[in-house]
Amino acid sequence: MKPFDHRKYRPAPRIDLKERRWPDRTIDKAPRWASVDLRDGNQALLEPMSVEQKQRLWQVLVETGFKEIEVGFPSASQPDYDFVRWLIDENRIPADVTVQVLVQAREELIQKTFDALDGVHRAIVHVYNSTSTVQRERVFERDREGIKAIAVQGAEWLRREAARHPNTEWVFQYSPESFSNTEMDYAVEVCDAVLEAWEPTAMHPCIINLPATVESATPNVFADQVEYFCTHISRREAVVVSVHTHNDRGSAVAAAEMALLAGADRVEGTLLGNGERTGNTDLVTMAMNLYSQGVDPELDLSRPDHIIQVYSECTGLPVHPRHPWVGELVYTAFSGSHQDAIRKCLNRQQPDEPWQVAYLPIDPHDLGRDYQAVIRVNSQSGKGGVAFVLERDYGLRIPRWMQVELARVVQQASESQPGEVDSAAIHGLFLEHFVREEAPIRLKGYHVDRRDGREVIEARLSEAGTERILQGEGEGALSALVDAWMRHSGADVSVVDYSEHALGEGTDAEAAAYVLLNVDGQRVSGAALDHDTLSAPIKAVLSALNRVRAPASEAA
Amino acid sequence: MKPFDHRKYRPAPRIDLKERRWPDRTIDKAPRWASVDLRDGNQALLEPMSVEQKQRLWQVLVETGFKEIEVGFPSASQPDYDFVRWLIDENRIPADVTVQVLVQAREELIQKTFDALDGVHRAIVHVYNSTSTVQRERVFERDREGIKAIAVQGAEWLRREAARHPNTEWVFQYSPESFSNTEMDYAVEVCDAVLEAWEPTAMHPCIINLPATVESATPNVFADQVEYFCTHISRREAVVVSVHTHNDRGSAVAAAEMALLAGADRVEGTLLGNGERTGNTDLVTMAMNLYSQGVDPELDLSRPDHIIQVYSECTGLPVHPRHPWVGELVYTAFSGSHQDAIRKCLNRQQPDEPWQVAYLPIDPHDLGRDYQAVIRVNSQSGKGGVAFVLERDYGLRIPRWMQVELARVVQQASESQPGEVDSAAIHGLFLEHFVREEAPIRLKGYHVDRRDGREVIEARLSEAGTERILQGEGEGALSALVDAWMRHSGADVSVVDYSEHALGEGTDAEAAAYVLLNVDGQRVSGAALDHDTLSAPIKAVLSALNRVRAPASEAA
Repeated sequence: MKPFDHRKYRPAPRIDLKERRWPDRTIDKAPRWASVDLRDGNQALLEPMSVEQKQRLWQVLVETGFKEIEVGFPSASQPDYDFVRWLIDENRIPADVTVQVLVQAREELIQKTFDALDGVHRAIVHVYNSTSTVQRERVFERDREGIKAIAVQGAEWLRREAARHPNTEWVFQYSPESFSNTEMDYAVEVCDAVLEAWEPTAMHPCIINLPATVESATPNVFADQVEYFCTHISRREAVVVSVHTHNDRGSAVAAAEMALLAGADRVEGTLLGNGERTGNTDLVTMAMNLYSQGVDPELDLSRPDHIIQVYSECTGLPVHPRHPWVGELVYTAFSGSHQDAIRKCLNRQQPDEPWQVAYLPIDPHDLGRDYQAVIRVNSQSGKGGVAFVLERDYGLRIPRWMQVELARVVQQASESQPGEVDSAAIHGLFLEHFVREEAPIRLKGYHVDRRDGREVIEARLSEAGTERILQGEGEGALSALVDAWMRHSGADVSVVDYSEHALGEGTDAEAAAYVLLNVDGQRVSGAALDHDTLSAPIKAVLSALNRVRAPASEAA
Repeated sequence: MKPFDHRKYRPAPRIDLKERRWPDRTIDKAPRWASVDLRDGNQALLEPMSVEQKQRLWQVLVETGFKEIEVGFPSASQPDYDFVRWLIDENRIPADVTVQVLVQAREELIQKTFDALDGVHRAIVHVYNSTSTVQRERVFERDREGIKAIAVQGAEWLRREAARHPNTEWVFQYSPESFSNTEMDYAVEVCDAVLEAWEPTAMHPCIINLPATVESATPNVFADQVEYFCTHISRREAVVVSVHTHNDRGSAVAAAEMALLAGADRVEGTLLGNGERTGNTDLVTMAMNLYSQGVDPELDLSRPDHIIQVYSECTGLPVHPRHPWVGELVYTAFSGSHQDAIRKCLNRQQPDEPWQVAYLPIDPHDLGRDYQAVIRVNSQSGKGGVAFVLERDYGLRIPRWMQVELARVVQQASESQPGEVDSAAIHGLFLEHFVREEAPIRLKGYHVDRRDGREVIEARLSEAGTERILQGEGEGALSALVDAWMRHSGADVSVVDYSEHALGEGTDAEAAAYVLLNVDGQRVSGAALDHDTLSAPIKAVLSALNRVRAPASEAA
């Protein structure tokens, strides 16, 4: 067959499940989490962790709240053995944390595993063998009975060795490896045989872990398999059903979530999804998915940047900028309509009501991020982003009609110079185009009188070195100023809209004013900042008039 | 509330679907793919693409086989407008490719959009407005009727403008943006109203695109919503149902796949999942998921490294080493048992049978990758990996008993020096420990006679400058040599196992031999390479005897 030819592949097996119940359920509590970072995760690294790195990652796992942590494969790796001994000998395992170790169903390895755990107060010994068709036929060359015998023999060795180490509270775990590619009746048959060897009870349950060793079907197929298993396994009440999904089709998290709907109690995975090939279930993503739905994740993920730092240093792996919940681009919005919607929702969000912000599924503050990163402005951004950053960083509340014009100015600037336009650059463009401190006509002083309900103004202006006093009157100082300008210039000017607001503490100016004029049928806006709340709008009018004299494009 | 507190969030809405049918279906053909790389993808970049970058990415999209490509938001962005004009004016759109452009439901933007498309032979005009509760209440401040009126008005403007440009074949597309957070009855109501304005037919269908603008529930909930929509929308036969999922919960691909089960016909997404925040549906992953199940993906992904190169240069984004199907660590296996299983399966895989290799869901050759990268060896690797690389790179077929010993040697070496142990280093360790060319006892010559069915040997050996001739006899040359050695040294030696194979062309040696001896009750192995097929095993015996004299650990 030619290299890229789909006909060489066959679909993954699926079962015909009658009366499935999982699609009607929702996840309303966190599963038992088990971290396999120090085993599956470590095993998949180009450069396995040093003892010091393992110690640091262990610390993070404990701090994050994991109560079950697989710490290695001590019978196969001397560093893993040494690490387990360090945990025990140095008394590093908190009373409420249980370590777990993996071992193949082979006698000498099982013995060595129990030796490695000597003296631990409680431990999960996790034994596995492969049960899928391909593994039976092509790797182990055994039939169903032969593979089941390996599992049962392993289970019996575990029980025997446990009896020889009576001072530890042992928990047994069995994985029919490559479960999702195993015939379901056979998977149940093998696990039933293991349960017969272990005789677990509801008081002393064992763990049966169902791996999607290689993800090979849509997650609903895995959910069907898990539901079948949960409804067909014997001694269900004495079994903690665990799942361990991989990400070969990019759906490890979805598969684990649907497995919970289908009856699983426990999820094995890793921080940020490290693990063989495409990785394991990402427990950060899965826990945050629960969190965002109002479910207590039972993990403390309030400091993801700390987790990311230790994770990266220990695994040598990057975190993608679009990684769910914690990637650096996740709380940004570049599109103008998104920015606008976020700004409106944030303004309306009350502290004690449920979070309701479009495009922001959670409050970034929860993860130690903040709105600084939420909105950036580039040539794709509209007025919302521009307005947002000026309000956030400079306290300026630009009216809508000026937002539209300013956004256009910012967009032109960003198109001529690629990349993000930062907040300072937007502020600069705002000052340059709308305030124009260095413009030809400047206010030198003014005097306003109220006479008979109307304002009369005397404004002293300088223009190109010449000072002149203009006089006018109207309903309000601005109208009076416009009247004075019309008398002076002969132009037809009116105030279309106007707004002013105080600026917060710590800024030089105390007031910002924005005006929209109609000058000879053409709309033109201006803005000004001043300590004096009357000077500000007068100056804003002059800014607009200056823009008519020398359009913005000339000033740039 | 404290910062990290799940109680401030509410679960996403879901519907109570009666008699759902999607979980019983499988995906047996590719959907209509629509790339939104140049719009949604571009919009989400810190540095939007230059015209030249857009042109290159466009070329890759066309080469990959996309027939529908959203190229921008020309009414909102001058670069997008210019790019659309370039495509049309420079005649860059193949006859079987349809460009798509996005526009809000606003009259002046719709007019500008049709201007931008003037002269195109066929185009999809994609109009949208937001329909979710949060958007209605907090962003647009309109009730259900008001929001529906925006949609209908937009639809009518599209129809009017299309009539004004009769020389183009127009396809209309409408998105109830934030569909998955909209009440389903209302989403259907709005879309029905749009369909009434457009009057599509089975011959001239329109597209209704259902976005999970922010992913906010498990994928089965989205599938329920899509199935509800598909079974309740009017004129279903005249509608192409499209989905557009985002990856906020890490399940965009799973959601799009389940939407296909639920009745969707078309999927919008991007190469490698670029897009707002956590990104869009990753169409490379989704197409490869189909491919791996024997379904024609209708996209040519045989050169992913070319796609990755252009993608990275255009977006500035990395591809994670564990990215499904195309990440650089995806066809590696570090764990010994995985390596062993892969090696066995690859050896048995016949060229014309369906692919059946444990831990390798597809043949990496299909994507221009090869087995060079499949197996690497580090301290976590077992014998399988060691054996694999020696066979692959040096043609050496190490017997199992030597694999075990060599793996231990390699593991010790890798534990003392962290990181990957490359193939050359493993070969070096093999030569140093098992071949030992510089060892004290060397073969200078030999003579073998066959007498009465038994072999008689005279072996001329040098040891520390002294030459001596040893004589012995046995059934076969090796037994005779061992006999000679016993007579000389007084030790009790027997051959436990032995293997030899020819080496391929282009190597110095023509034979490799491996022996496992029992020397005074202790097993010891040796190997040798020689042009002479009889010298090789004799030298292998001497290698083993040398190892008894000076154990491997001293030689290192």
